[in-house]
Amino acid sequence: MTVHQQSATPDATPDALVVFTPSGRRGRFPVGTPVIEAARALGVDIDSVCGGRGLCGRCQVDLCEGNFTKHGVESRADHLTAKSDTEVAWEKRRGALREGRRLSCSTQLMGDALIDVPSASQVHRQIVRKRAEVLDIALDPIVRLYVVDVQEPDMHLPASDLRRLKESLSYEWNLGALQNDIRVVQQLQQALRQGNWQVTVAIYNDERIIAVWPGFQSQVYGMAVDVGSTTIAAHLCNLQTGEVVASSGRMNPQIRFGEDLMSRVSYIMMHPGGDEAMTRSVREALNELTVELADEAGVHVDAILEATFVGNPIMQSLVFGINPVELGGAPFALATDEAIDGLWATEMDLVIHPNARVYGLPCIAGHVGADTAGMILSETPYLGEELMLLVDVGTNAEIVLGNRHRMLACSSPTGPAFEGAQISGGQRAATGAIERVRIDPLTLEPRYSVIGSDLWSNDPGFGQESVGVTGICGSGIIEVVAEMFLAGIINQEGVIQGDLAERSERIIADGRTFSYVLHQDDQRTIVITQTDIRAIQLAKAALYAGIRLLMEQFGTQHVDRIRIGGAFGAHIDVKYAMILGLIPDCELEHVTSAGNAAGTGARIALLSRKARRDIEEVVRQVEKIETATEPRFQEHFVGAMAIPHKSDPFPLLRQHVMLPAPVSTQNSGETRGSRRRRRQHQVH
Amino acid sequence: MTVHQQSATPDATPDALVVFTPSGRRGRFPVGTPVIEAARALGVDIDSVCGGRGLCGRCQVDLCEGNFTKHGVESRADHLTAKSDTEVAWEKRRGALREGRRLSCSTQLMGDALIDVPSASQVHRQIVRKRAEVLDIALDPIVRLYVVDVQEPDMHLPASDLRRLKESLSYEWNLGALQNDIRVVQQLQQALRQGNWQVTVAIYNDERIIAVWPGFQSQVYGMAVDVGSTTIAAHLCNLQTGEVVASSGRMNPQIRFGEDLMSRVSYIMMHPGGDEAMTRSVREALNELTVELADEAGVHVDAILEATFVGNPIMQSLVFGINPVELGGAPFALATDEAIDGLWATEMDLVIHPNARVYGLPCIAGHVGADTAGMILSETPYLGEELMLLVDVGTNAEIVLGNRHRMLACSSPTGPAFEGAQISGGQRAATGAIERVRIDPLTLEPRYSVIGSDLWSNDPGFGQESVGVTGICGSGIIEVVAEMFLAGIINQEGVIQGDLAERSERIIADGRTFSYVLHQDDQRTIVITQTDIRAIQLAKAALYAGIRLLMEQFGTQHVDRIRIGGAFGAHIDVKYAMILGLIPDCELEHVTSAGNAAGTGARIALLSRKARRDIEEVVRQVEKIETATEPRFQEHFVGAMAIPHKSDPFPLLRQHVMLPAPVSTQNSGETRGSRRRRRQHQVH
Repeated sequence: MTVHQQSATPDATPDALVVFTPSGRRGRFPVGTPVIEAARALGVDIDSVCGGRGLCGRCQVDLCEGNFTKHGVESRADHLTAKSDTEVAWEKRRGALREGRRLSCSTQLMGDALIDVPSASQVHRQIVRKRAEVLDIALDPIVRLYVVDVQEPDMHLPASDLRRLKESLSYEWNLGALQNDIRVVQQLQQALRQGNWQVTVAIYNDERIIAVWPGFQSQVYGMAVDVGSTTIAAHLCNLQTGEVVASSGRMNPQIRFGEDLMSRVSYIMMHPGGDEAMTRSVREALNELTVELADEAGVHVDAILEATFVGNPIMQSLVFGINPVELGGAPFALATDEAIDGLWATEMDLVIHPNARVYGLPCIAGHVGADTAGMILSETPYLGEELMLLVDVGTNAEIVLGNRHRMLACSSPTGPAFEGAQISGGQRAATGAIERVRIDPLTLEPRYSVIGSDLWSNDPGFGQESVGVTGICGSGIIEVVAEMFLAGIINQEGVIQGDLAERSERIIADGRTFSYVLHQDDQRTIVITQTDIRAIQLAKAALYAGIRLLMEQFGTQHVDRIRIGGAFGAHIDVKYAMILGLIPDCELEHVTSAGNAAGTGARIALLSRKARRDIEEVVRQVEKIETATEPRFQEHFVGAMAIPHKSDPFPLLRQHVMLPAPVSTQNSGETRGSRRRRRQHQVH
Repeated sequence: MTVHQQSATPDATPDALVVFTPSGRRGRFPVGTPVIEAARALGVDIDSVCGGRGLCGRCQVDLCEGNFTKHGVESRADHLTAKSDTEVAWEKRRGALREGRRLSCSTQLMGDALIDVPSASQVHRQIVRKRAEVLDIALDPIVRLYVVDVQEPDMHLPASDLRRLKESLSYEWNLGALQNDIRVVQQLQQALRQGNWQVTVAIYNDERIIAVWPGFQSQVYGMAVDVGSTTIAAHLCNLQTGEVVASSGRMNPQIRFGEDLMSRVSYIMMHPGGDEAMTRSVREALNELTVELADEAGVHVDAILEATFVGNPIMQSLVFGINPVELGGAPFALATDEAIDGLWATEMDLVIHPNARVYGLPCIAGHVGADTAGMILSETPYLGEELMLLVDVGTNAEIVLGNRHRMLACSSPTGPAFEGAQISGGQRAATGAIERVRIDPLTLEPRYSVIGSDLWSNDPGFGQESVGVTGICGSGIIEVVAEMFLAGIINQEGVIQGDLAERSERIIADGRTFSYVLHQDDQRTIVITQTDIRAIQLAKAALYAGIRLLMEQFGTQHVDRIRIGGAFGAHIDVKYAMILGLIPDCELEHVTSAGNAAGTGARIALLSRKARRDIEEVVRQVEKIETATEPRFQEHFVGAMAIPHKSDPFPLLRQHVMLPAPVSTQNSGETRGSRRRRRQHQVH
């Protein structure tokens, strides 16, 4: 055993130099000091629930062997105590303690050592997200577990059980001035005695005891929920690792009160108490979903101590028991635009731990909800210099434009056409729905594929599988209309060119207008009618006008990145969305799906306290633009009816796709050339 | 109109000097300033719920007319604006605005004025208590009402209703950074629209909105509850005036689970879930009592926004849903010795406003409950130099001894004899119970009176009324035993002197001991047996030993004042209590009933935030003495079995009553003379 005695302190206890990576923190400690104590004394971020009792296995570290001259450390295996019985026991649990790893609470310094704290042993570890372009999440959950031994009561020192618990938490964990829920008091005495004076407590926000269990409780979970008007999606997460342990979704049962948001609000207006019925129904579904998730993950619902929610303003209101009628008409006043913070689960009749807390992300405006806040939190436009456009398309489109200097948001009434509604052959995105379309510009013949099959309609065997063609979904409609435009079947005004009926039997007369026959079999015929084209034009014009309005307010003609949220963003081909003029001109590789950005935002808020404070602050700074009362919105809307646009020239798109010349450029403020020059100036 | 223009400021606006009494605050304001604004600017304590809208009538003031040279003010009626329409309307409501009084919000300064703010118009007015020896309460309730006008929503400024409400509260009332209950959000939109954008809010502790009503809500109430093992007593108070608007009590229905505390704890030990049943039963009784009080006062239960509770440790536990089994045996560990603070009424299933808050005074130790904390708060021994002894006698006696320098408390197991239980003819204090007794020392003949009649038994007509003699209650037992001692029927050891049977037929043999026949009619015979005497001796020895233990710990042989709480203190004659040796020697005029001190403590906590902080701090500093494990308690107990005491000489009592000499003085640490000298030294 090598003992380095470089300390000049009067007492001659030999000491050891220890260096922790990745933090680089270093210090000298007396030989015999447990590694975890050295780490704590240096403020090294190292996880522990049990406080060094060898119960939780979280404080694993690696000894780096060798002579690290840069750190001035010769680090050797015999500079740590030999493997303890506790560590041997942990190694026997499969995968619980990897070969070579040490439990820092069971290992003492015997000489100089370089010790690496792997990411999984850090309290504030980074949660890596799947999409490369988004930031990782720094784990910092609002609920944490602590194991503590409490002094037994003594008639001569008549401090209450709660007081002695708090004293132990202060002594062992440095958690002072703690408050507590009454239910903790109600459960404390039994827990202490069952646990033989050892309990695990859950502490909320470092300030309040919200749960107590006898003995050692290893896991605590949280739920992130995205309440959509059609579906409710939830993730169950381990709050100590950030890992998603189960995900599921189900229909929003409120659909029985009305398919879309406005029909639900109308229901409430017509039926007093209807809001309460809807709140009950969505909470019941939430509880079923919770039980399903917990079962899937093998977790007891009582181990779920936190839940976060996002939803559009009406869904968010109903989840939290707020009557949404004011959102059904002007001036669309929200009851609150603050986050719902620290609500008890019992206040919402949730089946999770009764003392669990609930956090609802803030709504931004009457039409721009907590789901948009979630999207902002997921995509973090507020952190960068790049001008980012976020779009979430539903019956309304929520649009956010901005960067770290300024953020704008609005909602635009696109209607349900993009979801396949109000389209003659339209349907929801489900097996059998046409989702991809190509049209040969010479023959005007289409080929297409359907959800649930990898084949194109002109591949051998198509239609002979079990998957039949049942309709056309949102992404299919966008592609077919865009392809019809590229093939010249419709002109820039969206009019189906009847004279092409001479060239192709697919162009058929339909009263005074024409239709395009996309699919025909013995089951059904799917045609794209002039009315369908108009519906798509109205929807895309609304979306584009909203975006343009924000760009105009921002004072820009160009966006650097576009992220499209939700199922719509995941399924559409962004090129076709741009050809049709749903979104403004942008480098195609900078236009990507944001995935379920709203749900991801709920998950980020679940795992990170800082993220909550961030989004609360960002949301306050977002400038809300009201499309309904903004005269410029109408002007933009009219211009956006054309495909892709009456005047916007889409120079970047034209690098990929041959487009007809714009109908007119007289309303454009700048020419294609001047815009390109300005952009080059920005880039270089 | 006289305008004093003494200001040297550049602008020539005439100004007026205003002096407010009783505060003496003074300042100059431009002519035309409303009196309430001047008062606020000077920090004069003047009440207002409506914020100067003329709705609440709380800001009444008196103009003092005359030339007040001391203040340098010539104050004249025409130095205020003439009576406004609002004031005329208030005068028409009978008693609402007294002749001559002005509403300071409707009155403007036109010249110099001396204005008196009467006590009833002060926010922090003093609540005068009935007993002369106790301190008044400075009104400072934790819940206050505020009227506020909220800006209507505007599509161009999409701040939520809650945000605009908070902005108005900040602007009008200077209440910033307010939090809120979720139920306020749920109710806010309807309240704002019903109230035409004016609402009244209840603010808890200056930091949280807990209720909202449309328009002007004038009153807010609170409930102070003393949960005894036998009876539950409650006061309903107006939180704005401090006035008790209704008081009532009812039996504690838990009696069906066991007459006394220990039998209830035994029930819980034998019946799992028994604690929940008892919690439910006491809360149901509370709710019935609440409805009764509200009906009596003509108040809606929803106007009750605060409730405070005191009770012994077991009752307090059960009210708050804490299983009290740990209090049934050593080491008698409390679940919590903190106050229960800010609990929602819904958590206790109370019928008051769902957002009302509940405060439970802290328990002190396993045997010394929140009722004792209430008694301390009512009697405030911790404020003075005088050494005060507080005694609350029930099945256990709670004893508090101390002054501003030091406080001690213990509980002593007196048993139920003082309540008439375990006494052959004993009964609760009710109509027909003997409560006063005198015995002629020559003839040994008694005379007595019963509850419900003003006559003594030797008065003509006694027994011919409807009130018959049914038994003997606690105060009657104390008197009869003390009188038996004074008449020589029992000696200092408490033995009934059988040889007196020769002198009086009232002394009768009862096996190997003797009894004294107190009452005989054709209905019943009430005798005092040797066993009864022993029961009283055991009870009084326990009480006295507890007191002596505290005095010994404190290092004193003398107390300055004794206050006896509860019904016991209200009914007994303190002289007999001292003759019997229940309480130590003290100037008789310094021994008084504390009334329902526990309930008063609950009421003080209801009306004053500061009192809550005070009692929480005091309780932490009280030294808890455990009689059960203290060997000196047994020694004191043995000495206290004699009447009044084996060795304590009771010199102050002897100034009023002729007592036999003590049995022995050999165990007394000091002589009568030395004690008196020491006491004189203390006093002078």
